[in-house]
Order: sequence, then structure tokens, then C-alpha cells
Amino acid sequence: MPLVRISHTPGKSDAQLTAISDGVHKALITTFNVPEDDRFQVLTEHASGKGIVAPAEFLGIDHGDDMVFVQITCSEGRSVEQKKALFDGIVDNLAAGAGLRREDVIINVVETRPENWSFGNGGQPFAAN
Amino acid sequence: MPLVRISHTPGKSDAQLTAISDGVHKALITTFNVPEDDRFQVLTEHASGKGIVAPAEFLGIDHGDDMVFVQITCSEGRSVEQKKALFDGIVDNLAAGAGLRREDVIINVVETRPENWSFGNGGQPFAAN
Amino acid sequence: MPLVRISHTPGKSDAQLTAISDGVHKALITTFNVPEDDRFQVLTEHASGKGIVAPAEFLGIDHGDDMVFVQITCSEGRSVEQKKALFDGIVDNLAAGAGLRREDVIINVVETRPENWSFGNGGQPFAAN
Repeated sequence: MPLVRISHTPGKSDAQLTAISDGVHKALITTFNVPEDDRFQVLTEHASGKGIVAPAEFLGIDHGDDMVFVQITCSEGRSVEQKKALFDGIVDNLAAGAGLRREDVIINVVETRPENWSFGNGGQPFAAN
Repeated sequence: MPLVRISHTPGKSDAQLTAISDGVHKALITTFNVPEDDRFQVLTEHASGKGIVAPAEFLGIDHGDDMVFVQITCSEGRSVEQKKALFDGIVDNLAAGAGLRREDVIINVVETRPENWSFGNGGQPFAAN
Repeated sequence: MPLVRISHTPGKSDAQLTAISDGVHKALITTFNVPEDDRFQVLTEHASGKGIVAPAEFLGIDHGDDMVFVQITCSEGRSVEQKKALFDGIVDNLAAGAGLRREDVIINVVETRPENWSFGNGGQPFAAN
């Protein structure tokens, strides 16, 4: 049940955008046990330095002008270790598949209660009984 | 105090966009007891399949190429039943008012503390005493 | 570790956009003790009344057609007083630096666990030990 917002810079090819979209989703499948068909994403393009703002360096990691921000809203319940595995997996996939620099992938997870989701037709498929 | 992000595909008429905006807000009024004047929304357009990514089917519900994602950030305190009523109300309103397929409306609620809001002029109108 | 989404209307000069971006960040430094280099923002432009929807008045505060919505996702741990200081600081900075009306600045904070962030190269720099 993640809703993923991916903010990227202009000039990406369709193949790169697909690789970014796929790479985030595959990491969610592998590390958060998200079903393959549970894929809801919004990708948006923003000019570097104006739309997407990032520091030249933070925590000893330098950033270029091709940043990608990935913000994932999902239900609570994943462990600290699962989150680390997710972050590592996303970075691995986006570097290998889309040619991004590993330093330029910023990720954040926002957690909600399971009853906070509806996936068409109304209703609340993941509310606890 | 909701902040609502509505992501939709291109090609919608002004009347449809108004119906989507109104339909989400009316459901918040009815089910979450949001005041009529407490209406803060951001609507954004995204190409289907590229900007907005959704699966052909999830949980037995099929999705078309005219998806609408509604993400609502609001203060905590609503019951599970209120959330279900919200989801049902949004879907009813968007189907009736904007001609959307009921299957194509995806909704997520993110909850925050009441002191996390400011509605102009600074300050923190909903902080607990 | 904030991720800041700033939604504004069209027609802003580069100097105004820089002042908005700077003004939000400086308030985070001053009130939330965010490091200067911990600056990750996404600025997006939306037509007034269609992309950005706000009421003419809410809580006795009137709104114009040049609204700015600031949504800040950050780690939990700030006090109610720190949040109020943040809101006041943002409004002061955006009025003074970008010429915005104080009434037209809407702010929301979303809090997450510290392990929910990755700032390049994968990993989880703020996970508790």
C-alpha cells in the first residue's frame, strides 16, 4: 500500500524514468514485502537548483545537479532493518538501472495506520478487524 | 485542517476539476467534520503511465488510465469508521460529479498532531492547551 | 532531515523564489536546530484557484490569490513551542524577504521516525542505536 512520490530533474529518457519507477518498486517488493501489483506512484519533474533544492554536501556526501527525491507513504510495521534494506535496495537499483549517482538519491518514509488507505471503489481493505 | 493533494491525468475540463475539488472537500465536511472554510488543496496534472503509475489490477479492482490519487494530511483523532465513510464519500462524489470510474480513485490519509498547523499569520491555532 | 514541499503561484521572480526557499530553511535552522547543509526542498508552481485552492477566509484570516503552502516532513522530537517558533519564523521571513502577505502562508509539519531517512548512498544515518 505504498504511495510513492518521485521528484526528478528534467532531461531523463523514458527508459531512465521506467528504470527509476521499477527500481523503487522492486526494492519495496524485496524489502517491505509489497505485492507486485501494489504499485502507486507519482513522478514529477523539477528544474535542478530551483525546483529541486539540495545542498552541495551533507553528512559528508556530495550532491550533484541530478538529484532524485523518493518519498514513500506506507503503513507502519516495518523494522528499522527493513527500512535500511529498502534504502540500500533503492539506491542499488537506481544506480544500476537509471545511471544515477548513488550520492544523489534521497529517500524518506512516512508511516500511517493501515486503515488509512482506499484502493478504488471506496472501502478500507487493510483496516484491522 | 486538512491539506489535500490531488494528482490527476491531463484533459480534464474546468468543470471536472471543480467537481473533483468540491467532491473531496464535501466528503471531508460530512465525515470528518471539517469546517466549510477549511479548504486547502493542491491539484496537479500528470501523464498517465508516466507521471501517474498504477497497476492494471490490485485487490481484485481493475484500474484504467484516468486515475486520481487523493492524499489528505490532517490532524489525528478520526475513527476507523469515519475514515471508511470519508473514502466512500469521496468515491461517490467523484463518480457522480466528475464522471470518474469508482475503481480509479485511490485515497490515503496521513495524520499529524494538532499543533502541526499554521493557517496564515504564523501561530498555531489548534495546539492543545 | 527535513524534506520541504513548497507550493506557490506562478509569476514569482527568481529572487522571490530564492527568498522563499531561504526563508523556510533559515527558520528551520533557527527553531528546529536543522544543520545549514541539511536542505532538501521541492518547489512547485500551481495556478491560483485551480492548482492551489484556498478559502477566502478561515479562522478570521483572509486569503488572497498568492498563497504559499509549506509542508515540512521531518523527524519527530520538536516541542509544541518549537513548532510555533518555526511557523512564526517562516511567516516573518517570507513576508520580509519575498513580499508575501503574512495571511497567505500556510504551513504543516509531518513527523516521522528518525530511521526513516536516507541522504545518499543508501544507509540510515539517524537510526537510533
